[in-house]
This record gives sequence, structure tokens and C-alpha cells, in this order.
Amino acid sequence: MQRTIYNEDHEAFRSTIRSFIAKEVTPNYAEWQSIGYVPHDFYKKLGETGATAFDVPEEYGGAGKTSYKYQAVMTEETARAAVSFGNYNISTGIIVPYLLNLANEEQKKRWFPGVASGELMLAIAMTEPGTGSDLAGIKTNARRDGGDFILNGAKTFITGSSQADLIIVVARTSPPSGDNRREGLSLLVMDTTSTGFEVGRRLDKIGLKSSDTCELSFTDVHIPSENLLGEEGKAFSYLGNNLPRERLSIAVQSYALAMSAIEHTIAYVKDRQIFEKPLSGFQNTKFVLAECAAEVEAAEAMVDKAIELDDAGELTAVDAAKCKLFCTEMAGRVADKCLQLHGGYGYVLEYPIAQLYSDTRVSRIYGGTSEVMKTIIAKSLGL
Amino acid sequence: MQRTIYNEDHEAFRSTIRSFIAKEVTPNYAEWQSIGYVPHDFYKKLGETGATAFDVPEEYGGAGKTSYKYQAVMTEETARAAVSFGNYNISTGIIVPYLLNLANEEQKKRWFPGVASGELMLAIAMTEPGTGSDLAGIKTNARRDGGDFILNGAKTFITGSSQADLIIVVARTSPPSGDNRREGLSLLVMDTTSTGFEVGRRLDKIGLKSSDTCELSFTDVHIPSENLLGEEGKAFSYLGNNLPRERLSIAVQSYALAMSAIEHTIAYVKDRQIFEKPLSGFQNTKFVLAECAAEVEAAEAMVDKAIELDDAGELTAVDAAKCKLFCTEMAGRVADKCLQLHGGYGYVLEYPIAQLYSDTRVSRIYGGTSEVMKTIIAKSLGL
Amino acid sequence: MQRTIYNEDHEAFRSTIRSFIAKEVTPNYAEWQSIGYVPHDFYKKLGETGATAFDVPEEYGGAGKTSYKYQAVMTEETARAAVSFGNYNISTGIIVPYLLNLANEEQKKRWFPGVASGELMLAIAMTEPGTGSDLAGIKTNARRDGGDFILNGAKTFITGSSQADLIIVVARTSPPSGDNRREGLSLLVMDTTSTGFEVGRRLDKIGLKSSDTCELSFTDVHIPSENLLGEEGKAFSYLGNNLPRERLSIAVQSYALAMSAIEHTIAYVKDRQIFEKPLSGFQNTKFVLAECAAEVEAAEAMVDKAIELDDAGELTAVDAAKCKLFCTEMAGRVADKCLQLHGGYGYVLEYPIAQLYSDTRVSRIYGGTSEVMKTIIAKSLGL
Amino acid sequence: MQRTIYNEDHEAFRSTIRSFIAKEVTPNYAEWQSIGYVPHDFYKKLGETGATAFDVPEEYGGAGKTSYKYQAVMTEETARAAVSFGNYNISTGIIVPYLLNLANEEQKKRWFPGVASGELMLAIAMTEPGTGSDLAGIKTNARRDGGDFILNGAKTFITGSSQADLIIVVARTSPPSGDNRREGLSLLVMDTTSTGFEVGRRLDKIGLKSSDTCELSFTDVHIPSENLLGEEGKAFSYLGNNLPRERLSIAVQSYALAMSAIEHTIAYVKDRQIFEKPLSGFQNTKFVLAECAAEVEAAEAMVDKAIELDDAGELTAVDAAKCKLFCTEMAGRVADKCLQLHGGYGYVLEYPIAQLYSDTRVSRIYGGTSEVMKTIIAKSLGL
Repeated sequence: MQRTIYNEDHEAFRSTIRSFIAKEVTPNYAEWQSIGYVPHDFYKKLGETGATAFDVPEEYGGAGKTSYKYQAVMTEETARAAVSFGNYNISTGIIVPYLLNLANEEQKKRWFPGVASGELMLAIAMTEPGTGSDLAGIKTNARRDGGDFILNGAKTFITGSSQADLIIVVARTSPPSGDNRREGLSLLVMDTTSTGFEVGRRLDKIGLKSSDTCELSFTDVHIPSENLLGEEGKAFSYLGNNLPRERLSIAVQSYALAMSAIEHTIAYVKDRQIFEKPLSGFQNTKFVLAECAAEVEAAEAMVDKAIELDDAGELTAVDAAKCKLFCTEMAGRVADKCLQLHGGYGYVLEYPIAQLYSDTRVSRIYGGTSEVMKTIIAKSLGL
Repeated sequence: MQRTIYNEDHEAFRSTIRSFIAKEVTPNYAEWQSIGYVPHDFYKKLGETGATAFDVPEEYGGAGKTSYKYQAVMTEETARAAVSFGNYNISTGIIVPYLLNLANEEQKKRWFPGVASGELMLAIAMTEPGTGSDLAGIKTNARRDGGDFILNGAKTFITGSSQADLIIVVARTSPPSGDNRREGLSLLVMDTTSTGFEVGRRLDKIGLKSSDTCELSFTDVHIPSENLLGEEGKAFSYLGNNLPRERLSIAVQSYALAMSAIEHTIAYVKDRQIFEKPLSGFQNTKFVLAECAAEVEAAEAMVDKAIELDDAGELTAVDAAKCKLFCTEMAGRVADKCLQLHGGYGYVLEYPIAQLYSDTRVSRIYGGTSEVMKTIIAKSLGL
Repeated sequence: MQRTIYNEDHEAFRSTIRSFIAKEVTPNYAEWQSIGYVPHDFYKKLGETGATAFDVPEEYGGAGKTSYKYQAVMTEETARAAVSFGNYNISTGIIVPYLLNLANEEQKKRWFPGVASGELMLAIAMTEPGTGSDLAGIKTNARRDGGDFILNGAKTFITGSSQADLIIVVARTSPPSGDNRREGLSLLVMDTTSTGFEVGRRLDKIGLKSSDTCELSFTDVHIPSENLLGEEGKAFSYLGNNLPRERLSIAVQSYALAMSAIEHTIAYVKDRQIFEKPLSGFQNTKFVLAECAAEVEAAEAMVDKAIELDDAGELTAVDAAKCKLFCTEMAGRVADKCLQLHGGYGYVLEYPIAQLYSDTRVSRIYGGTSEVMKTIIAKSLGL
Repeated sequence: MQRTIYNEDHEAFRSTIRSFIAKEVTPNYAEWQSIGYVPHDFYKKLGETGATAFDVPEEYGGAGKTSYKYQAVMTEETARAAVSFGNYNISTGIIVPYLLNLANEEQKKRWFPGVASGELMLAIAMTEPGTGSDLAGIKTNARRDGGDFILNGAKTFITGSSQADLIIVVARTSPPSGDNRREGLSLLVMDTTSTGFEVGRRLDKIGLKSSDTCELSFTDVHIPSENLLGEEGKAFSYLGNNLPRERLSIAVQSYALAMSAIEHTIAYVKDRQIFEKPLSGFQNTKFVLAECAAEVEAAEAMVDKAIELDDAGELTAVDAAKCKLFCTEMAGRVADKCLQLHGGYGYVLEYPIAQLYSDTRVSRIYGGTSEVMKTIIAKSLGL
């Protein structure tokens, strides 16, 4: 069905970013995958397109857009090219909104210009070995010592952390009070050049090879109190507030990835001859792609509606959970079917479908697993 | 996500029709299922609500609405009550649009008032033994004899035909010219009191027990030429023109049925105790219903968008095929899962879920099978 | 793969029973479905084939077979003909084993000859409104009064109960002791001519229309103490002991039904022309049936192995749970896909596939739902 | 269900090979994955266990077993350890049977001792850029020149080719005669030190990282005529003859992989705490693993039956196709569900489940895709 969420400005940005990707990303992508991260320098180039800080007000150097749609265009175009920009999604999609909501004036002035220019890379460290989706169980702690926080602990699965300049660390600043495990967590913005901070192993993953996902350790790291983000002890609710947007963005990514999988597969099956006939001429090929296209159409209607709600500030946590659950599961099905239509080539990473297949598997896990989404949805049904 | 397609008028109609169903349908429904059809009288009562002819201009006695949304509300409310009004869907949803588009002024004056009041029931006879989705293969024929057409042949799977007053018969009025099997078909409106017309066996179906689905035979049935609908020989394209709306309505029905299945199941699992605990307290119950709810949410976004496009006259055949394919397949999955949560009660027809399960199975078949939808979609993908 | 479990005797019986079904069942089956039960008289004819009491020793009039394989042949042949013999499966498959294991010498002499000749129909009444799979929650009770038990309570979902001569009623004969809800249940064999016993509503089901499934009520029904089956208070473990065989038989039934669905569908698609080409010539038809055939092949290997283990007395509760879970879920998938290949005809009950589809839905529920099977299997995995 | 296919000898070999894997494979496996192949030296060690040439008669240095069961044990143990031995499966499972059937006495004496000792690694080159499953379309050609064949052409997806000493090349030795594209293909055993032979790019794959899969090119490579395997022009039927065994072995591999996935996941969920409760305590965890276990049980019954048939020389091409289709599709489902239960850890390659997930994807493709299997099965159904 015809889409209606994008206007001419969005399409102009799409055109810009599509060229940018063709010129700056695609030729370098194999290299980035091989080294395991997107080089810091690249983000400066990206900053010139305005894509590093859509939402940041112009006074701080940002693009001053107040719509998620630009980011959605970005997501669609990276999916189309079967690439991903390492920690960009985290930085722009997840952390910038935190800063917008929680940073005080001084912090905004300090950090946003660098973010906008692409010189300041950001990461956020939540997950710990042994916690996963259960944030209330966080053990990394920060005690006050004079004006500073002294941080100790360990984190894992931290995307973009080996290249980041600043990492927002979720740490326990006071012990949990009685039954309420959710209290006493704070957000501390750590400079990655701090003494006592170490990036440990880079985790080798099934896909997303150009994203560095690392283990981190903190040993008596000093963080000045002016780097406290928001109020002390309120981190749990802050993290919750931003989840709808984060999950929407994973839903959009999954939709876009599935769409891209279909496009690449259509091109492949038209080109590929089998038993002296194009693969596209077989009924199975047609039916499988048609099933995929119908699912993607449903996902498109769903994310487009959700994007409009998000722009209006009305996307609920439950809405976002439904979008993430449906779109990520759908993308898993579509990527698998499209890979199969490629035969042996589908298993070779130089083909986009192999990249898309490998990348999409984590979408049912990160940002809250499908099981967490189901728990949220079930609660909303009164169960 | 919040729905935006309905305004106060629609909701007022919803309220009316909900009461109407509770009073006039639910108490009689078991009886209708047992006799195998909805009695002709009922439609007169329904006519008083305006539901028999939403789209028909007021000058002909209709409600003069130019939006499919009223019918969508109707579909949602019947699904909620786990009932179906026999040939109503056919008459109002499929045939009235034909008449609106094809009937001439005289015909409109002749037929619409009766349709609007519910006194004139309509059916349409396309399928023949041995044709199915292949309309071009139709063998029932009508030859000119003076001012009349003389109709001979047989039809099957004709919903509402035992109660109908008028049946639109698709017949071959001239032999197929060369390779073009699609030419030479016409629409003839037959009075069911005509000599030579016989209603044969009523087919016993898995579900939709209150709908009469019959075999028909025509032996030298005289149809006056003023009952020719549209131009002679153009039936194939007429049938094609109306398919998007027909398929949209099956999609909406499937969405509504799945929504209803979830609601009935939530009520059941909250009430039902198992191993001294409500069934709703089990994680499996929660997860299964959450999966269903996410799928229904996607379907809702999809049909709502399609309904708006239909109102704007912009719903394409491919759009409708995608909606039908996705929503009917989804409804099949959801009904099956919801039935399972009912245990043995799910298999007993007095429970709404058993009705919904049995009714929905045909939605992947009628109005064009899922396989036909895939063929249409694949073509649109260039395959 | 070639099957090896049947020898010449089994195949001879297959030949006998296949002719018997063609002569005695198929011509009457529509009638039985319409009245809602298989007439009592039919079982006398069936008794002449030896099929009513395979396992019963010859001294009591039975066939004296000590293998489940004859019953498996019977199951395969009824599935092939898309029929079911009402309460036969219950009587021969479930209740005869109870009597073999639990009846004393006097009871065997009293009951087996009639069972073998088909004059004595049996049913078993476990489920109550509100219990379902939770047998320990049974509330129907029987108190001692002199030599008799006085039975009060209600049961539901009791297959074959309107035609049965004897019903084994699971009743609480002493209150649960402390935490152990499983104690205090007994098996009482009730004559259905007893005063105070009433057959209530016959439940209208999605399928299995020739099986009467009723609600029963007991008001001060006197049951002589010589009709106590096994020891007083031990019913819970008795019921458990027989479950593997019962579940195996449902697995075999599901396998056979899926096999039959494929056979009927192959015949249909070869015969049916669509777009001037046999339906069997379309790749989708081929692929769908091939998927089904591979699943059925796996199920066949599984049930054949399980049947051999059962004959050797080595089939465990977990083995049977896995067989039931896999085979019933598989049959659901296969029946659905095969129905779809029939188009509109698949929804009409005169086609075998519609019968098979409607009948098979309950197999994931009765004899313990798929969810109960999963619970059993999970326990065996140490979860 | 209890397995019965293995005797004490098989279990003794299992014990040997399990220790061998723990000592020689697991500690080196990450290194092998990083370099992209299993070093040649390793196979000499493996040769000492007898595993490189189970079927080769003792007179040629082999183990003289005439049963596939030893290889099945090997497959199960590598899956249990979540490792794979590069080209071993190809060499022992696919090529040794070719040599057994087709090599003449002189060739057997020349090649088998080295194969048995692990000094001679073998590969087979069938697929070409643009052919895939369509072997009749092979374009690599070999013309006679005196006593030699002169080979020209290119191959792709050739597993084990960078480490192989000998490669069996399928080449066209005479043009296709009329409509019969299957004639004129021959098997030529090429020494990899030959002039004009080059190993091109090593393909980077989604999984199976320790297997080298390469592109090969042949430019006027001389192959002496005594290296012709079997008769000239008969390669197509030779390749067909060995397919049942090859597909059985992929089915066994898939079964074993799924079994291993379950075992690793059970261990994980028991260990892992979430929301202060072991993950194994959640109903969803239990149900998902139970579903997987039931599917694996069906696959086990199926492959065990097929292995016995293979040992008896009675496994048909259709049997093997059904086994491969069911087991590989099943393994895909199981690996995906088990990965999901691991949350983020499931996406990290140091966890066995991530390896199993990545490795198993290709099993639905190589050895003939699922689509090819369906085509074979459909033909056997008369479609």
C-alpha cells in the first residue's frame, strides 16, 4: 500500500544518505567487518550529513528535527544496502534521546556539539554478566567520594564501547531498599580515557560483525559528579521511559531488513538460471516471495502507524512491544525464506542476504527479548 | 495502538448494532445453525438499522453512506458475538457494490428499495462444479431468444441461494473468441421464482452453519433482457473490478474474528481454574495470547490503512490481495491457538471459540484462495 | 521407508476389516453422524470380526492377541476410510486394558464375553465440569452404605455414554488426606440402567460427529460393591498406568489420519483441473504434499518403534507423551495443508478431508493436551 | 525411546572418539575457525583412531567395517562437542564410498592406504558458478590428448579443496548428445600439485568456519588417464548412486546437532538465573524444550530406521530425501528455539549454540536443497 509518512524533506534526506552509503560505506564495509568495528573517523563524515544528531536542537549543533522519521529513513537505507554503522544506532537512536531528556544545560553544551559533528562517540553500559533483561539486578556500583563517584564492576554486551569517547554507565549508587530492587540506580557518564577503565574481550558474534560488542571492567574509576545524568537513584525509570522509542527503532530496522531481503532476493531469482529456466519462474519462488511481501506489508502498516504515534508523543510501551515482537519475528521468517531461495550462495557472506540473515537474528533478543515483549503484552491484556 | 478510522457516527452505529445482535441474533443463532440458514424475515428487521444498504443513495431508500467503515463496524460486531448473518455479507458487501456500479437507473429503482428494506435478498452465482478460482472456464450459458436470455447450466457453492429473491448469474453469452477465454461472459439477474431454476443440495460445511451454500441448476430458465446487468460480454472485468473490496472485507472479517477469539479466550482463561490456579496465571497462556495480540495489532494497522485507501478509491488489487492473505492466515493461526487454550471446551460448538475456529477456515479459500493471492502478489513483484 | 511391524496375520486382519468398513460403515456413516452416535447394534457385527476384544483371553470369548498391532491396523483402516466408530476406541482401546489389569476373576467372567461379542458397550467417566486434565480435583463422590456405594455428582465430555451399558465412574470414596489430593479416588462400574443416573446434553462438537459426548449426572445411584474395580482409593495410579497406551493410540490415530489425508489429497489433485491443467501439476501442490509426506514418514518411524516397545511392555510415559505431542501436532499441520489443496471442496463435509480435518483437532486436546505432554516431557529433561 | 541400533563396539568407539575430540579438537577449534580450515596434520592423528576409513577393507589399511553406524557415532560426537572437522565429512562420508564402488584394484592400492592413515585428503568438485543443484549443466571440460585428459573450467563451493591432496573433478568429457544433458560427464582424480590448477577465493560463510570452501580454476591441467574413476561418460549416474548415503549422513548430522542443541540449552537454562529464579523454572523454557525434544525423538526414530536400512543396502533415494528434508528442517527449528533461550549469549560464537545455529543453516541447502528433496518426494507420490 502507498506509504504516506514521508514528505519531500524526508525523501531528499533519503537521496543524500543513499549516495553517502554508496560512496562511504559499501566500499569499506568488508574491511570494517574484518576489523570488527566502524572507525571513529567515519562518524565525522557521517556528521556532515546531519545524521548523527537529528533531534538535537540547532543551538547545540544538531539538525533540530523533532521527528523520528529521519532516523527511520536512515534505517531503511542501511538495510537496503545490507550494512550497519556499528555504534551509530546506539548513539543516535538510544543515547541522544537520553541526553535530550536528562542532560542539564551545561551538559548539553558540553556534549552535543561533539555528538553532532561525529567527534564524540557514545555508548551505554547496562547489561552485566548474569543480568540480561533483569536490570534491577545490576551490581556495578558507584560510591561517593568527595565530589566524585568511584565506580567498580563489570559490564558485557556493550555495543560500540571500544570506540566510544563517553559511556553512560548504569550503576548502583545506593543499596536496594527492602523489596524495591529498582531503586538506587544512577546514570554516570564516563570518559573512556579514565584510569581504571578497561575494554576487555570483543565478543565474536553470529552477525553484526562491524559492531564492536565488548566486555568492560571498572576498577576505582573516578567520575566527576557533574557527569551524573538526571537525578541520582532514578535510572531505572529513565531506562524505562526510553524503551518504546528503542523498541520502535528495532521494529523499523526489522521491517526494513525484511524489505531489503525481499528486494535482494527478487533480483537474485530473476538473474539465476536453474534447469535452464530463471529461478523466478518457479511457482515455489513466487509463492515464497509473495508470502514474505504480505508479511512485510503488514509490518509496514504497523511501523508507519507507530512512527506517527511516536512523533505525536503517544506511542505506549505496549504498542512498542507489539511492534518489536511482530516485526522481529517476521524479519526472522522472511530472512530465512529469502536465504533459502539463494541456495548455496545464501550461506556466503558476500551476498547481502547472508549478511541480513546473520544480522537479524539478534533483533529478537536485544532491546528486550521476544519473551520480555510477550510479558509486557500479556500484562496489558490483564493476564 | 489507538485506532483512528472511526468517528462518532461509526461508534453510534456500533452501539446500535451491538444491541441489535444481542436482542435479535444471539438468542436465535443456534436455531439458525440447525436449520442451515438465516430466515428471510430477519433481514427486514436488519433493514430497519440501515445495515442492509449502507452505500445505496437515500433516494433509493439506502443509508447514503459512501464509506466502507459502517460495514467494517458491522463485521467487527458480528465477529465479537461469534455469529454470522448468512447471506448478508454477500448481499451487502459484494452485490450492492455491483448494482451501484452496473445497474442502470431503471434497475436501481426496481431493486434498491427492496434491498434497503431487507425484503429483497440477493445472491451471486459464479463458481461451477469444476471451475473454482478459474472464472474464465465458466460453462453455464445463456443464449438470446427474442427479448430473453435462455439460461442453462449448473452452479455450486452459492451462498444464500436458497433464501435469495434475485440471483446474479455469471453466464457465457457468447463463445470464447480464440485464446481469450475471458470474453463473452455476462451478468444476468434471475428471479428465483423462475421456471427451470432449482436449488439442489445444501452443502454441509465445517462451519458457517447458518449460511446456506447450495448447488443450483438452470434448465431453460427465461431471463428478460432488462435484467442484464452492465454490458453484455463484460462480466469478467466487472468481477475483477469488485474483487479488491470483496477481499478487503474478508480481511477485515478475519482481523475481527481473531480479535474476538482473543477476547473470548482472555475471558475464559481468567475464569477457568486448573491445578487450583487460574489458567491465565500460566506463562504459556500469557505468551500464546501475547503472540496472538501482536499479530492482530499488525493486522489492525493493515486493514485500517486499507479501509482508508478504499474510502479514497485507491485500494489496488495487489493491496487487497496482501491484506486478504495476511489477515486470513493470521486468523487461522490465532483461532487455532485460542481454541487450544480452551482445552476440551474449545471443541464444543456452544463455545464461541469453536464457532470462530470452524468459521474462519474457509476464509483462506473463498474470495480467492491464499494461493490465488500469492499469484497476484508475485506478479506485482515482477515474478 | 518400508514398514516391518506387521506380519501376515496383521495384514489378513487388515483385509477383513477393510471389507467390513466398506460394507458396514461407509454406507451408514452419514446417518450415524446425523443422529450423533454409532448404533449399539453395529458393535455386534463388529464383534464378529474379533475387533472388539483383541487382548481379551480366548477363555472369556476374546481374540487372545497380546499385541497392540491389531488395534493399530484397525486405527489405520478407519482413518483411511475417514470414519470413526464412536465409542469403540474408548471401549476397546482404553477400557478393556483397565479390565484386563484390574478386574477380578468373577468380574472378567461377568463382563468380557459381552464385550467380546459387542453386546456390552463400555464408557469411562473421568472429566468433570471444571476439572479437565486435573484428575486429582474430582468431586463426584461415592459413600459406602451397607454393601453398596451411593454415587452423587456430575461428569462431562463422556464419550460413548449415551450408548454404553456399563460406565466406569471415577469417584472420590474418601476425602483427600492432607496435601495428597490424589488419594481416595476409586473406580466403580455402573450399570447405565441404574436409578438416579441420567444422560444429559449431548455436546455438539466441531468433529467426531458420530461419537456421542455427553454430560452425565448421578443422584444417589446405588452401585454394588462387587462392581468396585481394583482396590478402593487407588484409582489415580490406575489411571496413570494406562495412559501410555492411551496416548500411543492417539498418536497412531493421528499418524494414520495424516497418512489418509495425504492419500485422499493425492487422488483429488490428480483428478482436479484448474486453469486447464491438473492441480497435481503445480509446484506448490507437489511441494506441500512432499512436506506432508516427510512429516508422516517421521511419525511412522516413531509410532512403529513405540508400538514395538509397547508390545514388549517397555513404552514409558515419557515416550508416549513425545509420540502423542509430535504426531497430533503433525496431523494438525498436515490436515490443514491438505484441506487447503482442496479449495472450497475441502470445507464441505462430504469430502473425506473435511472429516479428517474436523476430527483431528481434538487429538491435541483429549488424552491429555499438548500442554500436559510438554509438562511431562520437560520433567523428564530435568526441567 | 531407547535406541537399539548401537552395540558394544559402537559404544566403545564412541568413548574413544569422545576423548579424542576433547583432547585434540576442542582446544584447537577456535584457532581452526580463525584460519578457516582444519590443518592437514590433524587428519593423521584422526587416522590413528580408524575414523578416516571405516569402510575401507583392512587389506588397504582401512577399518573394514561394513556399517555406516561408526560414522553415525562420529557425527553424533562431533555435534555433541559443537565442532566439525572440515573436510572430513566429505572425505570419509562421501568420497570413500565413491572409491569403494568405482576405483579399480590398482587405484584402491594407490589411494586407500593414504586415506586410511589420514595422509591423503580428498575433495570432490561438482558445483560450478551458475549450476547449483543442476549437475547436468556442468561446463568444466576435459578433452583427451594422448594418454591424458586436459582439464579446463571452474568450480565453486568446493569444501576441503585448499587442503586436499586429490580432488575428484566432475567434468564433461564429451558433449551432451541431443536432449540428454546427463551423458558425457566423467570423474577425474586430480592431484592438487598439478600445473594449471589454482585454488581461488576461500568463501566466507555464515557458519562451518573451520571448513575451507573455495573456488577452483583449471587451466589446461593434465590428468593421466589412469586417474579416470569408473567408466568414461557415466559420472551422472555415479553421482546419483551415492546420494542416498550422502543425504542420510546430513540427516543424521542434523538430528545429532539438534540433540546437542537441546543438551547445551538444558545445561544453560539450569545454570542461568533470571529475575532471581533459574531460567529452567519458567514454563516457556520447559515447553519450548519439550517441543524440541519431541521433534528430535521423531527424527531419531526416523534416522535409526534409515541407518538400519542403509546397512542392509535397502535405503531408497526417496527414503533418504524424506530423512534429509525432515531432519534438516527440524534442526533449523530446534537450533533457532534453543538459541533464543540463551538470550544475548546465544548470539555469541563462543557459546556452542551459536556455532550449532550457524552451522546448521546450510544443511537445508547442501547435498540437495529442501526444494530438491520435495521434488524427489513428490515424484514418488505420483505428482
